[in-house]
Amino acid sequence: MKESDKETGIIEANRLFYEAIESRDIKAMERIWLNSERVKCVHPGWPQLKGWSNVKESWERIFASGELVSIEIKDVFTDVQGDTGWVNCVEKMIHNVDGEYIVTMAQATNIFELVDSNWVVVLHHASPMPVPRSEISSEKVQ
Amino acid sequence: MKESDKETGIIEANRLFYEAIESRDIKAMERIWLNSERVKCVHPGWPQLKGWSNVKESWERIFASGELVSIEIKDVFTDVQGDTGWVNCVEKMIHNVDGEYIVTMAQATNIFELVDSNWVVVLHHASPMPVPRSEISSEKVQ
Repeated sequence: MKESDKETGIIEANRLFYEAIESRDIKAMERIWLNSERVKCVHPGWPQLKGWSNVKESWERIFASGELVSIEIKDVFTDVQGDTGWVNCVEKMIHNVDGEYIVTMAQATNIFELVDSNWVVVLHHASPMPVPRSEISSEKVQ
Repeated sequence: MKESDKETGIIEANRLFYEAIESRDIKAMERIWLNSERVKCVHPGWPQLKGWSNVKESWERIFASGELVSIEIKDVFTDVQGDTGWVNCVEKMIHNVDGEYIVTMAQATNIFELVDSNWVVVLHHASPMPVPRSEISSEKVQ
């Protein structure tokens, strides 16, 4: 597989990961993650979770809460080394907390591995970052 | 190189990384990081920095401030895939802010690559996490 094909593949896998989050689709999440004890996940401000069963449960709780209205990504950078690669991106999330819309942003590192020609997530690490005033203002005028 | 030797090597590289932080040794930091535009660094609560010159400057500023008194790590997990690997660990930091000692904790993902038989850091992502009461109490009784 050419390096450029690998980059295209990892960017598509990253897109599918965020699509699964926004559509609260646990089956799609299951397809995009490696089902292994090795996987790790850090939600913004949380301690790290290990193993797919714990990680899956955390997404089920997040999806069930219904607070996450949308998640958009920008500033996407990829780095592929052999059959491992990682994507760094900024996540912009809109949450509905008791009827109030709140914008948060996070910096993410997502590590993928190529398994049977598919890129799958083995680590997701998202950490809170300051929300620029422009991002908040842009919501108000929509 | 055997997988077990790779794991030992990456754990030692991770130790050298934190030793360089605690001793505020920018030369040691320079040795343990890949000197490349590809490297990335997220300090707790910061946006991501890209490229060694920006990353180096951030460490120089952190070291110059003198606020970081100590950094200890625990819950160290490694995952090696070919010539790439990552370490996840919890960082416990003590800061001296205007004479007051403050404990903070962070969850870290550190990605390493094997270059000329040496593991070097290509990505450091640290995010704030809650400090358990036990960690604060243990400082008070010392």
